[in-house]
Amino acid sequence: MLITFTTDFGVSSPYVAAMKGALLQVCRQVDFIDISHAIAAQNIRQAAVVLGDVTPLFPAGTLHLVVIDPGVGTERKMIYAEVGGQLYLAPDNGVLSYVARHQAPARIVELTEAKYWRSHVSNTFHGRDILSPVAGHLAAGLDPALLGPAQAAMQMLPWHEPHIEPDEVRGEILCIDSFGNLVSNISVAKLKGWAGPGGIVTQVRERRITGLQSTYGKQPAGEIVALADSQGRLEIAQVNGNAATTLGASVGDWVRVRRAEKSSQGSENKAKDGLAPR
Amino acid sequence: MLITFTTDFGVSSPYVAAMKGALLQVCRQVDFIDISHAIAAQNIRQAAVVLGDVTPLFPAGTLHLVVIDPGVGTERKMIYAEVGGQLYLAPDNGVLSYVARHQAPARIVELTEAKYWRSHVSNTFHGRDILSPVAGHLAAGLDPALLGPAQAAMQMLPWHEPHIEPDEVRGEILCIDSFGNLVSNISVAKLKGWAGPGGIVTQVRERRITGLQSTYGKQPAGEIVALADSQGRLEIAQVNGNAATTLGASVGDWVRVRRAEKSSQGSENKAKDGLAPR
Amino acid sequence: MLITFTTDFGVSSPYVAAMKGALLQVCRQVDFIDISHAIAAQNIRQAAVVLGDVTPLFPAGTLHLVVIDPGVGTERKMIYAEVGGQLYLAPDNGVLSYVARHQAPARIVELTEAKYWRSHVSNTFHGRDILSPVAGHLAAGLDPALLGPAQAAMQMLPWHEPHIEPDEVRGEILCIDSFGNLVSNISVAKLKGWAGPGGIVTQVRERRITGLQSTYGKQPAGEIVALADSQGRLEIAQVNGNAATTLGASVGDWVRVRRAEKSSQGSENKAKDGLAPR
Repeated sequence: MLITFTTDFGVSSPYVAAMKGALLQVCRQVDFIDISHAIAAQNIRQAAVVLGDVTPLFPAGTLHLVVIDPGVGTERKMIYAEVGGQLYLAPDNGVLSYVARHQAPARIVELTEAKYWRSHVSNTFHGRDILSPVAGHLAAGLDPALLGPAQAAMQMLPWHEPHIEPDEVRGEILCIDSFGNLVSNISVAKLKGWAGPGGIVTQVRERRITGLQSTYGKQPAGEIVALADSQGRLEIAQVNGNAATTLGASVGDWVRVRRAEKSSQGSENKAKDGLAPR
Repeated sequence: MLITFTTDFGVSSPYVAAMKGALLQVCRQVDFIDISHAIAAQNIRQAAVVLGDVTPLFPAGTLHLVVIDPGVGTERKMIYAEVGGQLYLAPDNGVLSYVARHQAPARIVELTEAKYWRSHVSNTFHGRDILSPVAGHLAAGLDPALLGPAQAAMQMLPWHEPHIEPDEVRGEILCIDSFGNLVSNISVAKLKGWAGPGGIVTQVRERRITGLQSTYGKQPAGEIVALADSQGRLEIAQVNGNAATTLGASVGDWVRVRRAEKSSQGSENKAKDGLAPR
Repeated sequence: MLITFTTDFGVSSPYVAAMKGALLQVCRQVDFIDISHAIAAQNIRQAAVVLGDVTPLFPAGTLHLVVIDPGVGTERKMIYAEVGGQLYLAPDNGVLSYVARHQAPARIVELTEAKYWRSHVSNTFHGRDILSPVAGHLAAGLDPALLGPAQAAMQMLPWHEPHIEPDEVRGEILCIDSFGNLVSNISVAKLKGWAGPGGIVTQVRERRITGLQSTYGKQPAGEIVALADSQGRLEIAQVNGNAATTLGASVGDWVRVRRAEKSSQGSENKAKDGLAPR
């Protein structure tokens, strides 16, 4: 069975290997892929977007272990979930809610059957003591229904859709990647249909960016550009730089898009903030 | 054969892949797990604790390659060792001594048979030139006795046990993990038996911490807490912070535990250092 | 098929896993090795040296995926190349030119057959959308000739050989590794033949280093030493320190080597820069 790992342990941590060792003690017929161990500590939202972007690329039936777990040792549940043909083991804290924002899980099971866990379960490391052995049993063929009772729903975080209005599309910064690129919740394909042939101006914080680049490589270093990210979302990036730092932008900030119109554009910008459009 | 890697090469280094390539040239029937490549440079003690914590979690017969080797190119020996069912290839510099602190190695062999090494051995990279090909030969079924002469003992570092006295348990900081959590050499299970029902006060540097939390998640951010780590050792952590930095604590610092007694506790703390217990 | 990955995505990036997932959807019979994801952003030259050092260590027929691609989305080509028995998929931007500096590729194919790519190809992530599925098809047995038209040559960067003169060998800094060690383009074996029995003095920036150490471990911390790196190249390192920072040295800086001669050495150094030789 193909098994992935997503944690906030940090790339320096030996705890990922502890999870893999504990899993291998239950079943050897597995192949491991690390998705990321550099999720910001306890940042459920960032992990949720990473899982939504990356896990659907895997073959159906891949099992994804997720340990972003600020509530470890409290009453939060641990769950097994099937979404879009992918299998997940994770705390029930919303970390699977971006994966499931457009499609309901086919199955959710609460992990309660301790006989599939390590014999001693610590209060601080449920990844090693619960998720890893459960994953090993699933890889060995265990029916997920035996892990615990079925559950009708799981924790969902709010995932806003952009507001599409006649003269403005108003989205927000969904996440910031490890290059400081600002990923919005706005689909570039939809945006192109909305904007028509005249091009767009994107505003983040006080900065306006004219046009949509097809790639990073065509503008000079330092330039702030808008382009489609690898998921087709509108992204604001700085060529060879860090857009988040340069613009002082954070997750949840507005990303506003208007149609670029030759006559009005310059004066409007000047009136508002004195910045020439880029 | 299942083969793990623990080095101080840094997570950016391509030298780990060099070792894997050299090994694969000898034997393809292997599965690789990285334990850590972020051991502090030449920090034998930190690596020893990581190996002691993580390697026993693997299936018996797993081969663990260890390259924390400040003496590379000097006269230090390279050894093969079997401890607790796990197999190790490492420099003989104490890095296996935490693994072996409670159980003698079943076998130690000095690596002297150069026919199992790369034909040209550099002075600076014995991991690639000696350990990797030797690991490949072991994975292909070579009898470890052919690697060189048996050896009666290996280098041991001192690993202190805590002092348990009628009114105080005095241990020390064993290591500091990548979150800045202070891991002590004190077993929480033993501590609970010693302390009885009244709870404990833990002192590190000038800071006293009252009580034992069951998890990180139940205290406010910034709080310094004591809890059991994933190995059952007493750990001092800062909720969403770095205890080592906040307390100015280092490996080897005393960790003192006393019984919390309602009447004397407040005044004693005040008298000593003016800090309210946490 | 054994498949390696070398990128500048950073060790925190989930995009490597995205590539692996996309590849696994095409073919499951693969084993993955990460060479490095910490190549400096868009540093083709650094990546080229890493590939030249590490990929020849792998078994013949290993496929190496390379994504250091500042020109993504522009007109640069993507290629399949066979060099020295190793297989490569990479942008045609010189990143394979250190591997091929002494031996011409046996075959170069431009990747043009879009039927072996993902159905939707983004402008920003050709690693996932082109290289990964192509690698999957190769692993499944596809004839590389079907990927596109054969190509006679690929982009080559200049790789200087050192100047060997009667009284001086003048090379340059080829790359700086993650420890700050300065790796030169000078072969220590050739240097020893040139120098004869009297030893050498190496100069980098204003610093002169007398002699050649056999290893890092024999000099005190802080000392700047010259030694052979794991590839047999002359390397300048600081014991337990960072030579690049300490000396202010950069890639391309001269590395000059002269014969150490007892009588003239001290006075010559004094005359030039007042620094005692190390």
